[in-house]
Amino acid sequence: MNERLPDRTNGEPALAIVCGAGSLPFALADAAMRRGRRVVLFALRGFADPARVTAYPHHWTWMGQFNRFMRIAATEGCRDIAFIGSVTRPSLWSIRPDWRVLRLMPQIVRLYRGGDDHLQSGIGRLIEQHGFRLLGPKDIAPELTMPLGPLGSCTPGDRDTADIARGLAVLNAMSPHDVGQAVVVADNQVLAVEGPEGTDRAVARVAELRKNGRIRSPSGTGVLVKAAKLGQDHRIDLPTIGPQTVAGAAAAGLAGIAVVAGSTFVAEPQVIAASADRAKLFVVGVEAGGTAP
Amino acid sequence: MNERLPDRTNGEPALAIVCGAGSLPFALADAAMRRGRRVVLFALRGFADPARVTAYPHHWTWMGQFNRFMRIAATEGCRDIAFIGSVTRPSLWSIRPDWRVLRLMPQIVRLYRGGDDHLQSGIGRLIEQHGFRLLGPKDIAPELTMPLGPLGSCTPGDRDTADIARGLAVLNAMSPHDVGQAVVVADNQVLAVEGPEGTDRAVARVAELRKNGRIRSPSGTGVLVKAAKLGQDHRIDLPTIGPQTVAGAAAAGLAGIAVVAGSTFVAEPQVIAASADRAKLFVVGVEAGGTAP
Repeated sequence: MNERLPDRTNGEPALAIVCGAGSLPFALADAAMRRGRRVVLFALRGFADPARVTAYPHHWTWMGQFNRFMRIAATEGCRDIAFIGSVTRPSLWSIRPDWRVLRLMPQIVRLYRGGDDHLQSGIGRLIEQHGFRLLGPKDIAPELTMPLGPLGSCTPGDRDTADIARGLAVLNAMSPHDVGQAVVVADNQVLAVEGPEGTDRAVARVAELRKNGRIRSPSGTGVLVKAAKLGQDHRIDLPTIGPQTVAGAAAAGLAGIAVVAGSTFVAEPQVIAASADRAKLFVVGVEAGGTAP
Repeated sequence: MNERLPDRTNGEPALAIVCGAGSLPFALADAAMRRGRRVVLFALRGFADPARVTAYPHHWTWMGQFNRFMRIAATEGCRDIAFIGSVTRPSLWSIRPDWRVLRLMPQIVRLYRGGDDHLQSGIGRLIEQHGFRLLGPKDIAPELTMPLGPLGSCTPGDRDTADIARGLAVLNAMSPHDVGQAVVVADNQVLAVEGPEGTDRAVARVAELRKNGRIRSPSGTGVLVKAAKLGQDHRIDLPTIGPQTVAGAAAAGLAGIAVVAGSTFVAEPQVIAASADRAKLFVVGVEAGGTAP
């Protein structure tokens, strides 16, 4: 048994955190605990980091064990639940559907067709139908979401502001079609639109295009613009930036990063500010719904 | 001197074809000559294929030698002009601006900021201000543009038709922002949006995503959808498909290719039909302006 009994099972309802990969689940757990909240991690096998999970009350689980989750959550007194951390397409071996998931399969298959948003909002509904309350990072720890304005000491100039407006306009235009959360715009030209490959790879593409001389604008221009999709369930999939986002933007010769304030997850704002300053990039929280210049 | 005198300099006004890389310039020249038109190639150094250029009346020229072009065009009796073939970002060595281009520089620099369409329509205007008539492949040889309906023997099914509609809707939504000419959609999910990297690389990205298990839909689903951008000058930059487009789509496990009929250049329709049949892909001309299902 690698399940550890939580410190207490009574009192304030605990927060169940279903953990995918990366450090975000622990940042969220720490923030919730700082606010006096009891947390129980449901660590997804094959995704959650075993070395870090052990520091928290936790239960290991396979993806798909919804009935088991419900049983343990009841014992633990969890009614609030949060999903966090990356879960790229799971291999068949990491999914062990139990009878409850099997019964829900027709519904899940319907959700699986269509884009990510469709899938996510459907999962949110499924969970709430089973008596849970789904919370997002913003509900649990608003200090982990991007503030309005710059994180470090660099700020966007006029050209960057125009690129940010163009980027937000492109993201808005694509939003009904459930495409990417991010675009790169330089000197008013769209250099990359994120697809299922994710933000880091879309930005790496810009680095390559620049190296191959396929981009007109010089190094030091261009902005990575990220925004949640329209109708995206902020409780399940909030756009995220981390130090690797800053490193990627620097490698692509961008001037900075703009994300929508309040709806972007920033686990370590001080770390980001420091790496942005080192790379001489701006990282700025902007209001959503920009229009093209 | 590697300039050859044209066969005749009098009679019907000749067509000046400014040739970039690839085989399209020769397909266009052949089609114009089949229609009894005299052609004069202006072969761009560093781009046009020297081995093939010699078969036609031609003048080699550096990019940027607009005054020289005007002088020769007058001697040759060319008033109609067509630009064709790919010209990726020219190296500084392949541009030799003459005085007329230098005088136009402020105008050209203004055009250079902003997306491709902006640049192209500006170039079109510049040329016409100097007394030329700019023609597109469709004006010269409509048989080289995509017909409505399938080119080979495969046809899209219901799922493909929905993907095509979604693809056209995404392209329409992005069109005011001068982004790509192509998207890949599979099972209603947008897998790639073309940026400056071009169609072939965007499709190659889908092949890679599929290999890495980042795509939900199985191999054999998905459509590459291409359309001219709104306001794109069809005389300068028509979307193009060739045998390599079919090969790329096959490698990415797509079901087929859909392009807007009448505004896509297809140099060798028979060759495309044969390779599509071999790869069991459909290649279909559709009407523009689809809406999302």
